[in-house]
Amino acid sequence: MTERFYIPELVTLSETGGEHAELTITGPEAHHIRNVLRLQTGDAIELFDGHGRFCSAILRTLSRKSVVVSVGTIDLSPPPNRKITLAVAFPKGDRAKMLVEKVTELGVTSLVALKTERSVAHPDRKKCEKLFQTSIAACKQSGRNRLLDFQPVQSLDDLLANLPDETRLILGDPAGESSEGIVASVGQHSLLVVVGPEGGFSPAERSRILDAGAIPIRIGTHILRIETAAIALAAFFAD
Amino acid sequence: MTERFYIPELVTLSETGGEHAELTITGPEAHHIRNVLRLQTGDAIELFDGHGRFCSAILRTLSRKSVVVSVGTIDLSPPPNRKITLAVAFPKGDRAKMLVEKVTELGVTSLVALKTERSVAHPDRKKCEKLFQTSIAACKQSGRNRLLDFQPVQSLDDLLANLPDETRLILGDPAGESSEGIVASVGQHSLLVVVGPEGGFSPAERSRILDAGAIPIRIGTHILRIETAAIALAAFFAD
Repeated sequence: MTERFYIPELVTLSETGGEHAELTITGPEAHHIRNVLRLQTGDAIELFDGHGRFCSAILRTLSRKSVVVSVGTIDLSPPPNRKITLAVAFPKGDRAKMLVEKVTELGVTSLVALKTERSVAHPDRKKCEKLFQTSIAACKQSGRNRLLDFQPVQSLDDLLANLPDETRLILGDPAGESSEGIVASVGQHSLLVVVGPEGGFSPAERSRILDAGAIPIRIGTHILRIETAAIALAAFFAD
Repeated sequence: MTERFYIPELVTLSETGGEHAELTITGPEAHHIRNVLRLQTGDAIELFDGHGRFCSAILRTLSRKSVVVSVGTIDLSPPPNRKITLAVAFPKGDRAKMLVEKVTELGVTSLVALKTERSVAHPDRKKCEKLFQTSIAACKQSGRNRLLDFQPVQSLDDLLANLPDETRLILGDPAGESSEGIVASVGQHSLLVVVGPEGGFSPAERSRILDAGAIPIRIGTHILRIETAAIALAAFFAD
């Protein structure tokens, strides 16, 4: 696959009629092009702005701090058919990174770090920034043109209080129903999928989620780790 | 959750009417009980034999090289409703380990390391043994009582030539149909799910798989890494 780079400036170029123009890339993406991948003048690459715009580009000149490219026609990826928000009591370390990478590939729209009674890890600002970089890398690699909307730590009560209309609530739940048939029943509705911490939601939390109208579903018959449940549910509802 | 240990000897105990007897555990599981988890006399644990048998046990005596337990009633987990074999052109390193852990949790019955034209990694005997240990750890952690049947490297031709009757063949395929509705159509049939290497199967390989009757399906709209595709398909068909 053609190497892809995240260039937010593409939107300005698009709005000012600057297509088929030249664009100067600086910062980490210029470093990636020149020093990591060692691309050369004349090489073709792909650019995306994280909001759906993408285009082909050709490397023109590479200097120590910047890369100039000729930009082709800017296209717009369609938005996803089904908007999926995944709210997860985050696991620690590499498991958090894996979770973000995989759900980005699988097309989850928004990811919320959920604070629960039994949560052990609440990613701080620095950690969130690192995880966001992981999701950008996954967008580059997987051909995804719209960034994952990664939201800071939110409490379960805030999450449930702000449930948008027309959104179906799904609870990953070992005691839930088999997942078969659920996909058809949710149709093209937006989904909010909630995954609890190791050890599960407390009984009070579980009641609040079910009272808010959640459909409890299980994937398989074993006890899934947090990141496995999150990835499995993302795969299950991927459109 | 109660800590669980993989004790193949349970089958002998079960067959010789030795239930409610004492059992001596040695080797790595004894080490895990005594030195890693530092469990004590009187602690309750769970044992499983990897073929579906499982029971509660109480620690009686702990010595330098062995642990003696009192064994409770031995039960048998039901076999899975749907047998899933996953044949994957393995990724490298940590991604292989993650793949094995996650598909074990999700209940995949058998995992085949697939050799394809564009495969980059063929796990050797030592690597396979390590990955098998990863799957045992995932069984312990997830409450799974039947081990993952992990099969050594097999060619695509051998795999297709030995396709059992009544098995539905599924191809993970970015150009395939959306996965919705597929689960209902495969019912309780056994499945052989095939996932190609980074860069995909060669056109000739893809034709051979489709000629063998495979249903090509995609999960989401982006390009998935090998392990993401394997985990996503395992989640999708998990029963």
